[in-house]
Amino acid sequence: MVLYEVYELLRPGLAGEMRHGLTVVHPGKVGDEYFMTKGHYHTVLETAELYYCLKGEGLMVMETPEGEWAVEPLRPNGGLYVPPRWAHRSVNTGSGEDLLTLFVYPGNAGHDYGSIERQGFRKLIVERNGGPQIVDNPRWLPPEER
Amino acid sequence: MVLYEVYELLRPGLAGEMRHGLTVVHPGKVGDEYFMTKGHYHTVLETAELYYCLKGEGLMVMETPEGEWAVEPLRPNGGLYVPPRWAHRSVNTGSGEDLLTLFVYPGNAGHDYGSIERQGFRKLIVERNGGPQIVDNPRWLPPEER
Repeated sequence: MVLYEVYELLRPGLAGEMRHGLTVVHPGKVGDEYFMTKGHYHTVLETAELYYCLKGEGLMVMETPEGEWAVEPLRPNGGLYVPPRWAHRSVNTGSGEDLLTLFVYPGNAGHDYGSIERQGFRKLIVERNGGPQIVDNPRWLPPEER
Repeated sequence: MVLYEVYELLRPGLAGEMRHGLTVVHPGKVGDEYFMTKGHYHTVLETAELYYCLKGEGLMVMETPEGEWAVEPLRPNGGLYVPPRWAHRSVNTGSGEDLLTLFVYPGNAGHDYGSIERQGFRKLIVERNGGPQIVDNPRWLPPEER
C-alpha cells in the first residue's frame, strides 16, 4: 500500500544549494491513524526546511531531540517553516483528497530516519468523532529513558 | 510609483536557516520595458534561490559574473531553481495581473544589488507586437571591459 510519494530534484549536497520537490500524502487511515510520511530529522541537525501547502488539508507533527513537540496546520497557500533541529512528518487529515506540499531544504542537510523509526514521534494524529485529534504515542520514551 | 513589493520572513543569517517570502510584481511598463524587480546577486555567490510561481505570468532574467545569461518562464504552479552564482530578476509580462512568486534562499546568502545597479542585466524584456521579447541592454559591458 502506497501511503505517500516524494518527487525530488536532487541538487548537489552543498550548503549553498537547495534540494526541493513535492510530497503527496494520499488520504486514508491505518487503524485510526491518518496516513502520513515516515518523518525525519536532518543529519545536519542545524538545518531548516520550508513547506508550502498546495492542496489538501493536514498537520505537520514536529519534535526536537530534547522532547519538545509542536503540531501546526497545513492548508492550501500556507507556508510552514520547520526551524533547524526539528524532526517533522506531514499527516493527511483531509477526507478523500491528496495532501500536496512543496518542500525546500539546504543541499547538505541529509535525512536521518533512524531515530524516528525506533519509537515514532511523541504525538500521533488519530481520528476521533470524525476529526483529527493529537494523542500521546504510548511507544515514545523521553530522551533520558531511552 | 511602486513596481513591486516584497514580504519576507527574516530568519537568522545562518547557512542552515532559510529566508523566504513573497514577491508581487505589479503589471505595467516603463517605456516598452515590463515592470520588474531590481534584481540581485547573492553576497555569498555560491548560494541558490528557489522560486515558485503562485499567480501571473512572467520571466526570470538571470546572468553570471562571467556574462552567461538565461531567461526562463514563470507560470502558476511552476518552480524555478536559480543555481548558485546566478543573478536574477523577475519580470511581469502578463497583461493586467500581478506576478506572485514564493522565494526561498539560504539564511546566509545576503543581497548584492550594486553590481546590477551599475549597468543592469545583459538582457532586457520589452514589449514588441503585443508580447515580450528578449533584447540586448545597450548599457551592458562584458566583464573584461568594465
